[in-house]
Amino acid sequence: MLKPGSVIGILGGGQLGRMIALAAAELGLKTRILCPDKDSPAFHVSESHVCAPYDDFAALERFAAGVDVVTYEFENVPLATAEFLAARVPLRPGAKALAITQDRLAEKSFVRDLGIETAPFAAVDDLAGLEAGVAALGLPAVLKTRRFGYDGKGQVMIRPDEDLTAAWHALGRQSAILEGFVAFVREVSVVAARRADGAFQAFDVTENVHREHILHTSTVPATLSAGAAAQARAIARAIGDALDYEGVFAVELFVVGCGASERVIVNEIAPRVHNSGHWTQDGAVTSQFEQHVRAIAGWPLGEVSRLGRAQMTNLIGADVHDWHALLAEPGTHVHLYGKDEARAGRKMGHVVRVGRDPETCANIPGEGC
Amino acid sequence: MLKPGSVIGILGGGQLGRMIALAAAELGLKTRILCPDKDSPAFHVSESHVCAPYDDFAALERFAAGVDVVTYEFENVPLATAEFLAARVPLRPGAKALAITQDRLAEKSFVRDLGIETAPFAAVDDLAGLEAGVAALGLPAVLKTRRFGYDGKGQVMIRPDEDLTAAWHALGRQSAILEGFVAFVREVSVVAARRADGAFQAFDVTENVHREHILHTSTVPATLSAGAAAQARAIARAIGDALDYEGVFAVELFVVGCGASERVIVNEIAPRVHNSGHWTQDGAVTSQFEQHVRAIAGWPLGEVSRLGRAQMTNLIGADVHDWHALLAEPGTHVHLYGKDEARAGRKMGHVVRVGRDPETCANIPGEGC
Repeated sequence: MLKPGSVIGILGGGQLGRMIALAAAELGLKTRILCPDKDSPAFHVSESHVCAPYDDFAALERFAAGVDVVTYEFENVPLATAEFLAARVPLRPGAKALAITQDRLAEKSFVRDLGIETAPFAAVDDLAGLEAGVAALGLPAVLKTRRFGYDGKGQVMIRPDEDLTAAWHALGRQSAILEGFVAFVREVSVVAARRADGAFQAFDVTENVHREHILHTSTVPATLSAGAAAQARAIARAIGDALDYEGVFAVELFVVGCGASERVIVNEIAPRVHNSGHWTQDGAVTSQFEQHVRAIAGWPLGEVSRLGRAQMTNLIGADVHDWHALLAEPGTHVHLYGKDEARAGRKMGHVVRVGRDPETCANIPGEGC
Repeated sequence: MLKPGSVIGILGGGQLGRMIALAAAELGLKTRILCPDKDSPAFHVSESHVCAPYDDFAALERFAAGVDVVTYEFENVPLATAEFLAARVPLRPGAKALAITQDRLAEKSFVRDLGIETAPFAAVDDLAGLEAGVAALGLPAVLKTRRFGYDGKGQVMIRPDEDLTAAWHALGRQSAILEGFVAFVREVSVVAARRADGAFQAFDVTENVHREHILHTSTVPATLSAGAAAQARAIARAIGDALDYEGVFAVELFVVGCGASERVIVNEIAPRVHNSGHWTQDGAVTSQFEQHVRAIAGWPLGEVSRLGRAQMTNLIGADVHDWHALLAEPGTHVHLYGKDEARAGRKMGHVVRVGRDPETCANIPGEGC
């Protein structure tokens, strides 16, 4: 168990690392960031940082020397880096969570082996494998790289009658996974925390809307039957237990069926704090960032109750130019990441609106109750 | 008006500067701290700092070169320092607020000149002046240094029949103010924000309990008639206007009388964020720290509504050793300042409990509604 005054090492200096660092500071902890980008937003709010590539082992040695625990803000930490650090200082979550979630095929297989439903999938290692996969799963389907995909990068949609060779070349002829089409009703996620001793807390299931493969809004509570919400939480708990997980993680889910047959199936696991949990900063008693810090510090998990109906909206690229109007909206919580350049598709900040009166949710535009 | 990415300079690196820095970061602003203490907690969460005495003008020059606005966490900033900085970069709040609040006699006179009631007082420059003051105000009374007092430091209580010479020597024979005894019912404060254009917002009046001259708990709403609460807000507004104030400030008040004659009289003005406003971090839509940043940035003030009944308890000295038990209390928000040594009387952190159900305030120990 960490003591106040301990130092949390964070791999990655983006907005997630930054918000973990801010939450750690509120709890009297120091942070030390490792990131190759000299303009990392997390550097601005941490006690110290090392600016170096993730595979610079001399730098990793210096980084590890100053910290009591290491965590990360992204799942693509090289495994060699994770293992090098884990040999020197507790790595939380551990390398197992990274190994599985870095590889879409390993992740889907892991989930299926737990008896949890996923989209139908097939491994694809060559064009013949793609043809076999399409024969088995049908079209449309999505061909995805096994590694290093996020926000829609590293994937190709294959529609009926499309040329499989073109798709295979578009993806760069690398090891891939073919995922069958899921006629989902909506997308939801569970953001949950687990401690080493198995203690577990999940925030309320969140309904997510994407635009151009990037999360646009997250709204809680999700439109979801009580049974499916309980199923979502149980899935998160089973995954957390199977990974011996320490920290906050997210499970992205598809809602399928309707009425009595409504259920959720797993889309993806993120072994980290997650964009769809940002609403907790202003809409829950404990934020996902504080919860992550508590979990990796070995501290009691915080209360996850909601303060009202909440909606998070990402500020992507030029959206952030509305900052002044957003600050003027009564009750709208504005979070900006301190990034200089508002490039297209870049996450620059987010806002959280909380409708404290459950009857009116007056603060949430376009939402009925 | 500042733009996101601007740098706020903060004089003072204690917990107040630290919490201003954390709030600034959430809004996409950077901070730069000036503080002579190399272990300043605010250094850990700011982009840069200058570790130097407040009267090191070469250091002030370096500090000012990197910032877009300067603010402070304590009222005892030397006036020469304030003026040096104000000649280079906007100082918010301005030097006028410092000049008046640094001097208890100037402050009391300023308040009285606004037609606002204070404790009776008299200037004391020598023993004869003390004798004249006692003759006018009676005993008991409190003899206070005009400058550099806080948390009960720099003051001597004089009881009936006590030796005035001893009191005069105890205070170090310096310019002082004698304050007549006020038979107050309780102590309350208003934490408010004002922008340069006169926009004004006050948080709900807070009831404060001190132990050994140090704030112990702040509870909102205060036990106070609606009329006296409105009077308290009006007083804060009049003081803010008269000081052309920019930023957050606190007015500490005594509640006197009862029933229809209940009213408040001014005890002290603090030209900064204030310990009695810490409950706003978890108990109001906008925290006093965010509000201060908004005000000095020239941004719209945030909404000040309360989320429920709230109580802040300071963790003084060894109190902080209860950190683990406090973290385990459901719904209790723990804030630790990152200070190494839990010396007696030292503010190490605070907790905020919010009773969201106004009928029960179940989270607040020892409080009925």
